[in-house]
Amino acid sequence: MDGIVTAAMLVIGDEILSGRTKDRNIGHLADVMTAIGIDLKEVRVVADDEPAIVDALNAVRAQYTYVFTTGGIGPTHDDITADAVSVAFGVPCEYDARAMTLLADSYSRRGIEFTETRKRMARMPRGATHIDNPVSVAPGFHIGNVYVMAGVPEIFQAMLDNVLPTLKTGTKLLSAAVHSPFGEGVIGAPLAKIQKEFPATIIGSYPKFRDGTFWTELVVRARDPQMLDSARKAVEAMVEELKAPKEDNQLA
Amino acid sequence: MDGIVTAAMLVIGDEILSGRTKDRNIGHLADVMTAIGIDLKEVRVVADDEPAIVDALNAVRAQYTYVFTTGGIGPTHDDITADAVSVAFGVPCEYDARAMTLLADSYSRRGIEFTETRKRMARMPRGATHIDNPVSVAPGFHIGNVYVMAGVPEIFQAMLDNVLPTLKTGTKLLSAAVHSPFGEGVIGAPLAKIQKEFPATIIGSYPKFRDGTFWTELVVRARDPQMLDSARKAVEAMVEELKAPKEDNQLA
Repeated sequence: MDGIVTAAMLVIGDEILSGRTKDRNIGHLADVMTAIGIDLKEVRVVADDEPAIVDALNAVRAQYTYVFTTGGIGPTHDDITADAVSVAFGVPCEYDARAMTLLADSYSRRGIEFTETRKRMARMPRGATHIDNPVSVAPGFHIGNVYVMAGVPEIFQAMLDNVLPTLKTGTKLLSAAVHSPFGEGVIGAPLAKIQKEFPATIIGSYPKFRDGTFWTELVVRARDPQMLDSARKAVEAMVEELKAPKEDNQLA
Repeated sequence: MDGIVTAAMLVIGDEILSGRTKDRNIGHLADVMTAIGIDLKEVRVVADDEPAIVDALNAVRAQYTYVFTTGGIGPTHDDITADAVSVAFGVPCEYDARAMTLLADSYSRRGIEFTETRKRMARMPRGATHIDNPVSVAPGFHIGNVYVMAGVPEIFQAMLDNVLPTLKTGTKLLSAAVHSPFGEGVIGAPLAKIQKEFPATIIGSYPKFRDGTFWTELVVRARDPQMLDSARKAVEAMVEELKAPKEDNQLA
């Protein structure tokens, strides 16, 4: 219950920036971090380009408690994440003995040759520890405060599940949503007033648009449950008051 | 046809980082940029926090031809993008006369009061020009090389459509995809060889996973159509050769 734990995410891959692959990992990590009480503060998507990865990684790992990366840890020539992370940490990228054994055993069982290409998946920065991969064996890895995981969502999610129990979590940021049938023009002023009355909460307004009309989802966030409850009640009362027919009540 | 035009995207909003809203704009912008020949090089997602927005915006606007932002331009207290962009550019954030007229007319036609809250949507950095909003009137804006647009996908897409004809575009990066029924362990080495033979292309391998087996989408990118064609043919020939039954041909 002591303090705030933060995280950043680094999504690595030309395929996301070209639109060829639509990211499915940002939303998943955001959901999971919120659920366990870690504040995801920033996400960066960078290309398969060593200087870009190194710069972004060094910027975010200095700033947040944890960094989670996805993408670029396969066996092909365009998978350069392990090399880039090694450069960022100033350590050699080398074949990890345990990963070599894991992969050799797996290929041996399946009667498949353990080629040089496949051996690339056992490369990681010196000093890194494994993140188990229950889907396709080749491990991710963890060095310093950085967790390096696969980009394929099924594998990313399985690796993240293995990492979660090891993370320090902060006081969970609780949230409560209040549905508002009104657009932001209506609720803006009274909502700002409530935000001022409850400075220990974060009150967000998220406009939604459907069939030509707006409504808003109002979300109250707080680390203290009683504070959350008080602010949520104030927002609900505001919405109810706006619903009551009054001559100066404008719906839009 | 002269040179390369680059872009970055800045997604602004606590709701994306908390997982409450799943981003739908990154993939759309990526698709559109690729289609018109602008290289999307980086995406950042930051919170509704002025220093975070200012720092990220100043970092990317110095580095890329264009910056596109989404989110935080509504009328509520948590919509601080216009203020943050003004701080980044070192200019005052003020009520724009034309935006005020647009909004006043729109509310007047609909018989809705043009409140102080609604007037917030007419605020923009001094010197900014409008990006028309055919969906909900309140304009986005353009200052320097930065295009500030709504986060609601329907409005973002409409605003982006209005911006596109004004952009300088580079030599389009063409792409061709080759389906490989083999996992990356099989195609890794021959693909790296082809990449070396065609240095003016970018060859990517994107592993896909379904029902316990891997396949890969191999994507060749080049600015020159003949170079693209030659490299694509080499990749196709490699896949065909791997398909031919040979005793040293391992499928996995």
